[in-house]
Formats: sequence, structure tokens, C-alpha cells
Amino acid sequence: MSLNLYEASIPVFVRMLGNLSSILDKAVIYAETKNIDPAILVNARLAPDMYPLSRQVQIATDMVKGCAARLAGVDVPSYEDNEATFADLQARIAKTVAFLQSVSAEQINGSEGRTVTLKLRGREIQFLGQPYLLDFVLPNLYFHVTTTYAILRHNGVEIGKMDYLGAY
Amino acid sequence: MSLNLYEASIPVFVRMLGNLSSILDKAVIYAETKNIDPAILVNARLAPDMYPLSRQVQIATDMVKGCAARLAGVDVPSYEDNEATFADLQARIAKTVAFLQSVSAEQINGSEGRTVTLKLRGREIQFLGQPYLLDFVLPNLYFHVTTTYAILRHNGVEIGKMDYLGAY
Repeated sequence: MSLNLYEASIPVFVRMLGNLSSILDKAVIYAETKNIDPAILVNARLAPDMYPLSRQVQIATDMVKGCAARLAGVDVPSYEDNEATFADLQARIAKTVAFLQSVSAEQINGSEGRTVTLKLRGREIQFLGQPYLLDFVLPNLYFHVTTTYAILRHNGVEIGKMDYLGAY
Repeated sequence: MSLNLYEASIPVFVRMLGNLSSILDKAVIYAETKNIDPAILVNARLAPDMYPLSRQVQIATDMVKGCAARLAGVDVPSYEDNEATFADLQARIAKTVAFLQSVSAEQINGSEGRTVTLKLRGREIQFLGQPYLLDFVLPNLYFHVTTTYAILRHNGVEIGKMDYLGAY
């Protein structure tokens, strides 16, 4: 066993999106049980100038589809960013997972030194493939999944860290 | 350039602890500026049954010192978990970074298949080195750093995602 760029990216992304999906399922059940409009949770935020839950899920999925495509050297799939319900968000997660699974280890491995150019807050940033994954994509993915979790937890949804980590 | 276990762990940990330290510095400045007792932030939580900020920082550092030691095959440093101020938490981060920097690439690389045994909520779990890093340590590290960020952000501290990600 020796670590490679594919193992450090695609299966990790798929696993975390699965955990994110399970967390959203629990939010739906919570809303039903408590007779809360699910849109309240979809639009909930931790601070007035932070993004709502829906945008957290959009960015988490953007991060991983962008990474998979850029490391593999294929076009980044474009999504409309119009999700307004938990069902919409689940569909976005599912199509992201399908895209991730369409990318092979052969396409990803060897792209450690590939130049990746991003537009970030109006300026262009260049990464090499490996630091792009380790210092940008993974921290961002976990940030937005954790923030989704935190928004729901703060609003009373009964989830625990094992929902975030997934089964072992 | 080819990814290895050391590059995917120790430099990533050191970088994120540096970002965490900067975030805590901004919390101290915020408390001073707003004339808030810093202990309020150190003890703040996002939900009554979630850990306070101090414990988030303790667990983030536990995750990485445990990982570095277990992959390198050395004893896990034991800390007292008695931090009560931002200065205490900064000292904990600093000693964790010093420990991480004491571990070499030669000690970490090749431990992908090393068996790691953890006690988790009363039961023993066995990992191999690589999934221990990818599926347990990194998601946990980012979870607790992001939750620290979210607690402070929810309480009005002026931080942004670039504080969490660090400079590029």
C-alpha cells in the first residue's frame, strides 16, 4: 500500500459526500418530526454574513467536482446553483458523486505537478496539483461539510460526529 | 513530485494549526476591542450539547499529535487538557507544532499499512495507517478547526474563510 493522489482525493470525496447526504436526510426527518418547514433549515445560517446551508452544500460539491476535473484534465461540470430544497441538494450530491466516479485513478495519478489556475475573489491563483488538493480542496470540502453540520446541530437536528465521519 | 504520507500529514497539520492560531489571535483582539471577557469565547458553544471552543482546540491538537506519533511508531505525547485561556490554547498549539516538527518524513513514509488501534467511545477500532489519516484524522482535524471558527464567527469575531485557509 502506498499513498497516491487518487486515493487521497476521489474516494475521500465520495465518502464525505455520502456522509453529507446522510446528515441532510436526518435534517429532513427532524423537520417532519418537529413540523418545521424544511426551507427554514435550508436557508439557516450561523451568522448573518455567512452563507446559508444550501450554499454550503453547493460549495462543498463545487470543490470536489472542480478538483476531480482539473486534476484529470477534463472540463469542470457546470451546475446552475438553483437548489432550493433538501431534495434538490441531494440530487446535486448524487450527480457530483456520479461525476467523481467517472474519473479514473489513471487520470488523477501523476497530476501532482499539473498547474491549476483558479479565480479567487477576483484574482488568479496558481497551484500545483498536489498543494491544490491538500491545501485548498480538502480544507474547503471539510469546512463546508462541517459548517452544514454545525448549522443543523445549532438548530437542534439530532446528529453526532459519527454522522459526519461515517461508519468504520 | 509524487504524493507521500508525510506530505499528506505533517506539513498539512502544521499549516492548519498555524491558521487556527491566527484565528484565536483575532478572537483575543475582538474581546479586547469589544470589552468582552475572553473566557466567554473560550467557553462558547454552538449547541448546549456540543463541546466549547477550548475542547475543540484540544481535540484538533490531539488528532494530529496522535497521528504523527502512531504513524511514526513513537509514544503519543500526553497533555493535561487543562487549558482555560487563549494563551493556554496557544501554548498547546505551539507544543503540538514542535512535536510535529520533531517527526521526520522517514518515520512517516512507509506506514500506510501500519496497524493503528484506537479506543473510540469505549470500543477498539483498528485502522491501517493510510485510512487512519485520510478517513479519521484529517476529517476530525478540519471538523474541530472549522467548529472553532464557527463558534467565533457566530459570536461576531471578524474572521473570514481566508483566515481558515491561510495565505497562498
